[in-house]
Amino acid sequence: MKWSKTHLFTFKEAPNDAEIASHQLMVRAGLIKKLGPGLYTFGTFALRSLRKFEAIIREELEKAECQEVLMPMVHPRELWEETGRWSEMGDGLLKFKNRNDQWFCLGATHEEVITDYVRNDIKSYRHLPHTLYQIQTKYRDEVRPRFGLMRCREFIMKDAYSFDRTEEDAHKSYDRLFKAYQNIFDRLGVKYRHVMADSGNIGGNKSQEFQVIAEAGEDALMICDSCEYAANVEIAPSISQKEAYKGEFESLEKFDTPGFRTITDLSKGTGVAEKYLVKTMFLKDEDGKTYCVLLRGDDEVNDVKVKSLLGLSNPPEMLSEAEVKELTSASPGSCGPIGLKIPVILDEALENYSQFMVGANEDDKHYRGVSFPRDFKVDKVGDVKLAKEGDSCPNCGNGKYQNVRGIEVGHCFYLGKKYAEKLNANFLDENGKSQIVEMGCYGIGVSRTIQAVIEQSHDENGIVWPKNLAPFDVHICNLDPKKEEVASVVDKLVGDLQAMGIEVFEDDRKERPGVKFKDADLIGLPVRIVVGGKGVTNGELEVVERKTLEKSAVKIADIPSFVEKLLSQ
Amino acid sequence: MKWSKTHLFTFKEAPNDAEIASHQLMVRAGLIKKLGPGLYTFGTFALRSLRKFEAIIREELEKAECQEVLMPMVHPRELWEETGRWSEMGDGLLKFKNRNDQWFCLGATHEEVITDYVRNDIKSYRHLPHTLYQIQTKYRDEVRPRFGLMRCREFIMKDAYSFDRTEEDAHKSYDRLFKAYQNIFDRLGVKYRHVMADSGNIGGNKSQEFQVIAEAGEDALMICDSCEYAANVEIAPSISQKEAYKGEFESLEKFDTPGFRTITDLSKGTGVAEKYLVKTMFLKDEDGKTYCVLLRGDDEVNDVKVKSLLGLSNPPEMLSEAEVKELTSASPGSCGPIGLKIPVILDEALENYSQFMVGANEDDKHYRGVSFPRDFKVDKVGDVKLAKEGDSCPNCGNGKYQNVRGIEVGHCFYLGKKYAEKLNANFLDENGKSQIVEMGCYGIGVSRTIQAVIEQSHDENGIVWPKNLAPFDVHICNLDPKKEEVASVVDKLVGDLQAMGIEVFEDDRKERPGVKFKDADLIGLPVRIVVGGKGVTNGELEVVERKTLEKSAVKIADIPSFVEKLLSQ
Repeated sequence: MKWSKTHLFTFKEAPNDAEIASHQLMVRAGLIKKLGPGLYTFGTFALRSLRKFEAIIREELEKAECQEVLMPMVHPRELWEETGRWSEMGDGLLKFKNRNDQWFCLGATHEEVITDYVRNDIKSYRHLPHTLYQIQTKYRDEVRPRFGLMRCREFIMKDAYSFDRTEEDAHKSYDRLFKAYQNIFDRLGVKYRHVMADSGNIGGNKSQEFQVIAEAGEDALMICDSCEYAANVEIAPSISQKEAYKGEFESLEKFDTPGFRTITDLSKGTGVAEKYLVKTMFLKDEDGKTYCVLLRGDDEVNDVKVKSLLGLSNPPEMLSEAEVKELTSASPGSCGPIGLKIPVILDEALENYSQFMVGANEDDKHYRGVSFPRDFKVDKVGDVKLAKEGDSCPNCGNGKYQNVRGIEVGHCFYLGKKYAEKLNANFLDENGKSQIVEMGCYGIGVSRTIQAVIEQSHDENGIVWPKNLAPFDVHICNLDPKKEEVASVVDKLVGDLQAMGIEVFEDDRKERPGVKFKDADLIGLPVRIVVGGKGVTNGELEVVERKTLEKSAVKIADIPSFVEKLLSQ
Repeated sequence: MKWSKTHLFTFKEAPNDAEIASHQLMVRAGLIKKLGPGLYTFGTFALRSLRKFEAIIREELEKAECQEVLMPMVHPRELWEETGRWSEMGDGLLKFKNRNDQWFCLGATHEEVITDYVRNDIKSYRHLPHTLYQIQTKYRDEVRPRFGLMRCREFIMKDAYSFDRTEEDAHKSYDRLFKAYQNIFDRLGVKYRHVMADSGNIGGNKSQEFQVIAEAGEDALMICDSCEYAANVEIAPSISQKEAYKGEFESLEKFDTPGFRTITDLSKGTGVAEKYLVKTMFLKDEDGKTYCVLLRGDDEVNDVKVKSLLGLSNPPEMLSEAEVKELTSASPGSCGPIGLKIPVILDEALENYSQFMVGANEDDKHYRGVSFPRDFKVDKVGDVKLAKEGDSCPNCGNGKYQNVRGIEVGHCFYLGKKYAEKLNANFLDENGKSQIVEMGCYGIGVSRTIQAVIEQSHDENGIVWPKNLAPFDVHICNLDPKKEEVASVVDKLVGDLQAMGIEVFEDDRKERPGVKFKDADLIGLPVRIVVGGKGVTNGELEVVERKTLEKSAVKIADIPSFVEKLLSQ
């Protein structure tokens, strides 16, 4: 393809709203253009990359016995009512009325629709198992879209759904899809990890994410430094030594803590180490029910763990300062569990603490000599804190957590009967008995992955495409497009390379060499070949590997094999 | 692919809402399944067919120098306000507010979005021409979706947009795309016609439709029986001989026409041939302005021609009986132009009529001896009637119109500056002068075409897929899937055929032969091979061509070449 025949425009400056490198580079290289908040048009180059990724996905999923279908984007309300998610999904699910005053939503995920599709067909155990998937545009009404394709409203997703007879079979499907995901992400040539994860409002009780490792990633991950274990910090278990602590005051007494607003203030003012202080947090669930959470002074609450411990459907929210004041009559720095009539959740690290300090629910006052259950009732004990770098690995025990950041690009969920039960997806088993179908679901953020790859693979000059996702393999900078002898060398090169299955893009614009080189670096195709009058006369051209920026002078006749070697590395 | 591993379910009965054969067959063959009104899921087989069509489209468009992009489905209101179509498009454009109270619509067409995409890039004449296209899901909020994919709400469309420097170049782009469309539809192996058409609310002043010929089609077409000319009846010119007629009464007089409600009644009652009577119709435009249209008694009004003659943006509507009564004080059978204060439009066939009859705007009364301009003022004269079978061809003059019905599957529009002007899509020409971009747009109803093809190509047993769109080429009915010698013959056959690039689907279900044959006919793959114990023993299998249902006994070793020959016919 020639640039002069391509609608491709590069930019020196990134737009103001582009906060991270991949977003900046995608806009600057003409891959995407914003239509509105969270809405992007994919240019020809981005689409070529997307199509390559989609082809990899299709190949691996077909190998894993998945069948492609295509479901509508617009879903009728009635179906979402059957699972209760019409209201449960909240404002992220975009809802609208059509001209006939009927309610619909834009598909944010397709569990309801695919289960409806399947339940009408499946009658007998002989009709199972099946795994169906689609590659399709999804819409989620993000409050504040940002980071380009990473948190946008409209995006391309691959979603697969497995349907099985038994839980055991469903886990086999899960494992088969999980393996397919490993194959898919292996083929991208990027650094990624699969991590244990929370199921969110998709549901089910087993879930793993595929994360492309990148500093700008929105997810914090804990990775063991000695075994394979990795988990999203949302659920990463934090192993407590359950150290014992006993403060010096035996009986409960109030004392003044003037102006102590934080754990640090209290530690400084009392001389007690932060880890021996007890932090009181207040959370409320969707129904407005409030909870008091107690943690070690040096720990932070993990709302997802609280959700799981309490069996809520969404993580509870922190109370605002005003709400805390209304509940306790004190400012957040002076609150504690004593005398409140709400459930108290104790992080397990505090199990062996006694005679400690907590806020007295009176401004500038704390209690000391606090012990439970003498002074307050504990309703639940569990791991409700954020894991920290250096915590012990829950898998091997020897290793320590390392903290890295990732971009979630894939997610596998074992769903069990959650949707099938609500949607009456049943079949008759070998004994003629009605059974509920077992399900799993498996997503890949297709458009998001493209950006994640760029976020991981770029330098200060531009994108560094991995071969399998590059829009083209080779970028020819034709410095003298009007010179006949140059044109004929270029044409022969393009012909030879294409005959080897190598895709070539030629910059034949009337631009200065400097502009062409800068654009080639920005666009980031794996190999650049520079063709100018001088090189053609000498019979030797410059070949540049984008990743290393290493330059080689190569005889024209040797270029095809040289390029092939570079691309196969 | 084996049926036992495929989520494919066929049905004996069609759903109640399936009025036409193609809709019934698509549902019965498991190609599509309804999710809601006008919303369908495409099964694996339908998707294979769609993908083949998309591949043909891509190949031909790339040859025609088009570049693929992908635009969002959700569009911000502000952009549609710029062209005025936010309100002009009416209720077919689905509009909604997002969680932040901002208005958006679901893309029904993409002129606004693509022009916005391009206007931000194009600065100079050197940046033109470009033709961009996408294959994407569109949504139109049909009041009453019906006929399956033919009039549904969510559908797959290919839309292309050309951008040129000059009107001359724009027409070249139009012609290039038109030729690409011919290539595309030629490759489908269906009977189609390109016809002159109205531009509807897309705009522009030249437009042609591609119509798949089928009796169940929604469009009436006029096709010349001796030349290439064809037109949608909406715009098909009706050549009038402008015959002269002069009635026997010279001066205007009212007479009784008791109970004469129709032209036929009046003709019978007065003895004057219907074609010498004058029919009065009343229409109103979007602003509520009314018009009186006069036609020969044997002609019918064509609202699209009235629209064009009056320069309206949409066809005017017929007045209701009540509205006619309010306007004329008479029932529709007794109305006429005399004494009304609204514009009168005369069909040109009446130009040489005088001393004729019209209703007297008084029930059961008519005037005779009516002449214009003596008795009423004519505001416009033109061709405002529906063309009829047998009318002369406006192109060759010798031929006569034949009436056929079609399903619109493609449409080319020359748009000129209509959108570019409103959206400020400008560039600097060779002289540094700012110019407005010239545009064209070109659509193909991708999902609709699949159904149109089935509507044209089926018999009482099921679908008859043309080779290039068939989900698979060959359907093997394996009658003894558990017999080892049968399985090994099937496996070898499948291997041999696949090695030749022939796609094979195998019915390996535990079903009776009769069920398998019926399903094979219903699904309609081009070639069926029947493999059973007896045939394997005899070394000869039955090969059936779906189109002709012709059966041949073919030696097993000869089957691959026999099948290849059948498929290449």
